[in-house]
Amino acid sequence: MPRMALGVAYDGSSWQGWQTQTGGRTVQDRLESALGQFLAQPVGTICAGRTDTGVHGLGQVVHIDTAVQRRMESWVRGLNALLPDSIAVQWAQAVPDTFHARFSAVSRTYLYLVRNSRVRSPMLHGRAGWVYHALDLASMREAARFLVGEHDFSCFRSSQCQAASPVRTLQALDIQRYGDFFLFTFKANAFLHHMVRNLMGALLYVGQGRQAPAWMEALLAQRDRRLAAPTFAPDGLYLAKVDYPAEFGLPVLPADKALFSHLGFYPAGC
Amino acid sequence: MPRMALGVAYDGSSWQGWQTQTGGRTVQDRLESALGQFLAQPVGTICAGRTDTGVHGLGQVVHIDTAVQRRMESWVRGLNALLPDSIAVQWAQAVPDTFHARFSAVSRTYLYLVRNSRVRSPMLHGRAGWVYHALDLASMREAARFLVGEHDFSCFRSSQCQAASPVRTLQALDIQRYGDFFLFTFKANAFLHHMVRNLMGALLYVGQGRQAPAWMEALLAQRDRRLAAPTFAPDGLYLAKVDYPAEFGLPVLPADKALFSHLGFYPAGC
Repeated sequence: MPRMALGVAYDGSSWQGWQTQTGGRTVQDRLESALGQFLAQPVGTICAGRTDTGVHGLGQVVHIDTAVQRRMESWVRGLNALLPDSIAVQWAQAVPDTFHARFSAVSRTYLYLVRNSRVRSPMLHGRAGWVYHALDLASMREAARFLVGEHDFSCFRSSQCQAASPVRTLQALDIQRYGDFFLFTFKANAFLHHMVRNLMGALLYVGQGRQAPAWMEALLAQRDRRLAAPTFAPDGLYLAKVDYPAEFGLPVLPADKALFSHLGFYPAGC
Repeated sequence: MPRMALGVAYDGSSWQGWQTQTGGRTVQDRLESALGQFLAQPVGTICAGRTDTGVHGLGQVVHIDTAVQRRMESWVRGLNALLPDSIAVQWAQAVPDTFHARFSAVSRTYLYLVRNSRVRSPMLHGRAGWVYHALDLASMREAARFLVGEHDFSCFRSSQCQAASPVRTLQALDIQRYGDFFLFTFKANAFLHHMVRNLMGALLYVGQGRQAPAWMEALLAQRDRRLAAPTFAPDGLYLAKVDYPAEFGLPVLPADKALFSHLGFYPAGC
């Protein structure tokens, strides 16, 4: 059966995460319901990364199999007419059946946006993590250096994580400051359950001076979740980009450009 | 009685505008309820600009009169603990009784943020106006030049406007482009009802090539609301800044910095 790939964006604050749930209000259920209407037959979806409750999607990728033919340009417009304001298909493309949204993915990039200010902003509720105490960029960058590379991330793994191995390769952990904002970029082959939010909790401890940067090295060695910082809020977490082998020719938007385009966040120099 | 001024920000998409309504869900009612709890007595508020349903406040200014004493630092924290996520007091300051949030205001600055893209963004629903067709910056700037200055703005005035005169002085109308975004800045001594949204409707007609820039001059001369473009959506409209005489010493944040700080919108060079 012909296979289609879809790029999907959603405001996660309205949803109980990606994955289908009985009686749940999930992005997957809502997307499959729109697809069912659009194609006039039920269809299942496979996604690149199952985001949790409150986590946003900018560059989520999904594939479906269907024999139903639709004009290429009508996929985006037709589906978006059937989707609520908080979900929108960004692009649609035919792919060979060797493409798999989850297993073909080479890496995932998550962004975490933090607003560091004395007073909360109503506009950013649910869209950025809020930290009251001043954050120190240099010490967080120093801490980040211990995390990059292949490690046993047991100390940053939720107790509900179902992955067979706690070993992951964190290809990049970049931190930029833009005025009151700190933007964290995490790129890895794959992530453990709650891994980014747990890493954020620890990085923010360091940023506030509650721990020294070398604490990260100790946490990795101890492999004990109870020794690390609490899981940080999902509010500022975005699945920004999924990389696939170039042969599939899928649309590619750099992670920070995706955030810029969807949030109005505008890094200088863009 | 001692007078206090408060800077208030709110996400207008959750509210039926500023002004109190019987049975209505308004920012004023909600703020007065928090003030009543905080001061343990009822208190009325006067604001600088009564925003409509869906319009956001970044730099709204309010004054209240109360004999109740509270430590200065507890005003912001105490009130915000009593307010919902969509409203937050940004600062509080004692002012002389010659200060009046509405009548002392020298000018108001509204921003309108437009996202110009083929596909809608779920993250910006209710926070930016969306225009599908490509916008031309130069022609909108040319059109804007006709609007600056003192004019009879009858063609941009809602039929429900209660102002005695349709004459206003538009001190500035600036348009900047940031990637997919267009940011419109309107500064005037005061605005007529729906004036910014009506100006936006006409400017976007010009930007899409549906009218020439000189159409603005004709509209002003004709003074007939029915000849102009439809009222544009409230989604991207922000009351960003209110200016008062310097003698009151109120906190001042430039309009674009306020948007940056509250939306993560980051003009290059900030």
